[in-house]
Amino acid sequence: MTLTRKGQATRERILDAATELIAQRGVAGTSTEDVRKAAGIGGSQLYHYFDSKQALIRAVITRQAEVPLIPGQPIMGALDSFDALRAWADAAVEHQERNDGRAECTLVSLAGELGTTDDQTREDLCNGFQRWQSLLHNGLRAMRDRGDLRPDADLDELSMTLLTALQGGTLLSQTLRTAAPMRASMNAALAYIRSFTT
Amino acid sequence: MTLTRKGQATRERILDAATELIAQRGVAGTSTEDVRKAAGIGGSQLYHYFDSKQALIRAVITRQAEVPLIPGQPIMGALDSFDALRAWADAAVEHQERNDGRAECTLVSLAGELGTTDDQTREDLCNGFQRWQSLLHNGLRAMRDRGDLRPDADLDELSMTLLTALQGGTLLSQTLRTAAPMRASMNAALAYIRSFTT
Repeated sequence: MTLTRKGQATRERILDAATELIAQRGVAGTSTEDVRKAAGIGGSQLYHYFDSKQALIRAVITRQAEVPLIPGQPIMGALDSFDALRAWADAAVEHQERNDGRAECTLVSLAGELGTTDDQTREDLCNGFQRWQSLLHNGLRAMRDRGDLRPDADLDELSMTLLTALQGGTLLSQTLRTAAPMRASMNAALAYIRSFTT
Repeated sequence: MTLTRKGQATRERILDAATELIAQRGVAGTSTEDVRKAAGIGGSQLYHYFDSKQALIRAVITRQAEVPLIPGQPIMGALDSFDALRAWADAAVEHQERNDGRAECTLVSLAGELGTTDDQTREDLCNGFQRWQSLLHNGLRAMRDRGDLRPDADLDELSMTLLTALQGGTLLSQTLRTAAPMRASMNAALAYIRSFTT
């Protein structure tokens, strides 16, 4: 479907409203009618853009997977040095601190709620997580090529370590409402990567 | 409420059924009627034990928080040595491998689905996670007292590192259906703790 510029803007407004409502209430607690009202659009207009609730949820996931790894941050450059990784980890901790641990990650919430139940949506989540992992992987490869990391550093494992640290830190910081889990998980992940320096 | 032995058994059966259904379908996808049928009990009997769905969910969380840290494992001893921690990490990875990454952790799913929405349930989840963290903390303290860890090792941070590794590994292994995330997160967490050896 090709959308006009105005149509694009409306579609984005619907996705913004859906993302915020899902973060607050979960997928099950969010109806398409709630989204329609929050987006301030009329009648059947929502179905012009998304023909079902599932289509809307999948579009939310796809868009979330494209934003950089820390919500609320401007696009971050390549994570291809220890300084860049440290800045990324600090941004994740600060984000949890600013929001008193309430900073929601839509993908984490969705993975908890839907990960094991709905196969199509789970695949979208997988694609999102794998996209993030490959961003991290690319940065680590640059570091290894440059000689910052040892040639035997397993980049699949190290990029997965960073991703699990981000997700585990987010899940526990959201639930416990403190940034301490994110700080602990990021410190451990970065120290692990540093242990592979030449 | 004091229950007879038979009443206790029925209550356990209801909690077993609810835990399994929630792991499969999430909280929103599980009705008390589904639980009643799966537990094989009649009419209004469920409400004799739990006066609302929320009371049932909270009881599931409280019971899950009391099981040892790896689902499906027999009670594990104190995690108070590197060998014990390695065995614990290996059990977590094997659990994900056996179940092709589908091994559900009810607390992780619930934290994703409810963590940010329902304050009372979130408190139960916090209590569960904090109970686990204190088990890990106790083991690390024994290691520090024995001289296995340096006196300046921050046990709050190290116990939180283990907990975020377990949760991040579980969330991503469940979603991606491979044990690789659990293996990566556990390797990193254990290496971090080893870096505080004397």
